[in-house]
Amino acid sequence: MSRIGVLGGMGPSATVDFMEKIIQLTPATRDQEHLPVIVANLPHVPDRSSAILGTGPDPLGALLAGIDVLNDIGVGVIAIPCNSSHHWYAQMVEHSRAPVIHIAQSCVAAIATTPGERPVRVAVLATRGALASGFYQQALRERGIDFLVPDATNGQDHVDACIRAVKGGDVQAGAAAFELALEALSATGATVVIMGCTELPIAAKAANAAGHGTLMLIDSSLELARATVAFALDKGWNKPTWVS
Amino acid sequence: MSRIGVLGGMGPSATVDFMEKIIQLTPATRDQEHLPVIVANLPHVPDRSSAILGTGPDPLGALLAGIDVLNDIGVGVIAIPCNSSHHWYAQMVEHSRAPVIHIAQSCVAAIATTPGERPVRVAVLATRGALASGFYQQALRERGIDFLVPDATNGQDHVDACIRAVKGGDVQAGAAAFELALEALSATGATVVIMGCTELPIAAKAANAAGHGTLMLIDSSLELARATVAFALDKGWNKPTWVS
Repeated sequence: MSRIGVLGGMGPSATVDFMEKIIQLTPATRDQEHLPVIVANLPHVPDRSSAILGTGPDPLGALLAGIDVLNDIGVGVIAIPCNSSHHWYAQMVEHSRAPVIHIAQSCVAAIATTPGERPVRVAVLATRGALASGFYQQALRERGIDFLVPDATNGQDHVDACIRAVKGGDVQAGAAAFELALEALSATGATVVIMGCTELPIAAKAANAAGHGTLMLIDSSLELARATVAFALDKGWNKPTWVS
Repeated sequence: MSRIGVLGGMGPSATVDFMEKIIQLTPATRDQEHLPVIVANLPHVPDRSSAILGTGPDPLGALLAGIDVLNDIGVGVIAIPCNSSHHWYAQMVEHSRAPVIHIAQSCVAAIATTPGERPVRVAVLATRGALASGFYQQALRERGIDFLVPDATNGQDHVDACIRAVKGGDVQAGAAAFELALEALSATGATVVIMGCTELPIAAKAANAAGHGTLMLIDSSLELARATVAFALDKGWNKPTWVS
């Protein structure tokens, strides 16, 4: 069971980005020092955001089938680099033998709330479905962190366009939309931006970094990777057990 | 069985690069049009090149265990983005229910041999183990293609350094070594270079493209991805079967 399980394909590029982060976060100078990872890249899972909004088919059956694939193969922990799918987190956890790391909990835990510094005001960029589900808002409320979500038209439209472009393979269009989404936050007093959809960091990487100003960007995919690698290194999964 | 299986982790970055190529080669504008892929990223497999050269432990047991993981999960074809592991191709094929696509056969098939054009002379860049195994040379001989391998010191040393650097996470050092490996080919009359180790394309991407001159670079990882995607699209695996 000494392997990481990744329920991926939502979308495929976000899964590749997540795998790359796992590799970069693992201290290794040769193949054999890396972490074993089983990835179930299952892009046919119905769109999570549409389902939450009641405009598309339910993905729960497909999500649980993916959880089964990973458990059957014997993974010791599961990471899901798709924020919106965490609407069904409780059902997936109940269905899984292996623990499932919560992407939003990992992400919110990363926000510095040191007293005495400039007050933190978090903008949550995510799909409309994830925002309607409300798990980011709940995690932030539980930690007493002030937050806002983008304006439903000017703001969220750019987030939607960004996610759609990256899923469609047009990262440059995604980057342009991401910059517009950040610009739309300028009057809100936001100091921290949660990239709460795993397509957003891909767009952010291609966007004009100088344009972010003093906004601190928190990458949900990176924070999930950090939590996952920490879990696996703590268990010693980077050390081959079957090699004599 | 309508899923691609990837036996990966040799090395992990090469596997991520291969997955990215699968995605880019798939005609898709949204998640649900992509191909399902199960990746067994198992970096603890002992070093393939050392084993072929008789200086390290045998990886065959680990390779077959990886083949089992993918067959147990129900994949319809297996791709292995590691050239040197193809030394054990016959044993893996015999052990696997799913067919295994041969990376070197895919790669050699991509070399244009149109009559009337400038004579093709192929340089094979690969690990010392893969060259000692000889499967690239055999595939080239079978098609009557003229080839050479780098000089064991000036030439192969740079290839070795390049692969080691990429596996160690230092892509820039890998790129510099890759450029030296190409330079060492300048007096050989090579017209085509097979990047017959899946770390080499990662270095090449970071290297000075202008420095390649008129050398045509063939990327073993890309050719394996092309063959794999063609196989899967032909079977219609990009069309979800379980969605009503």
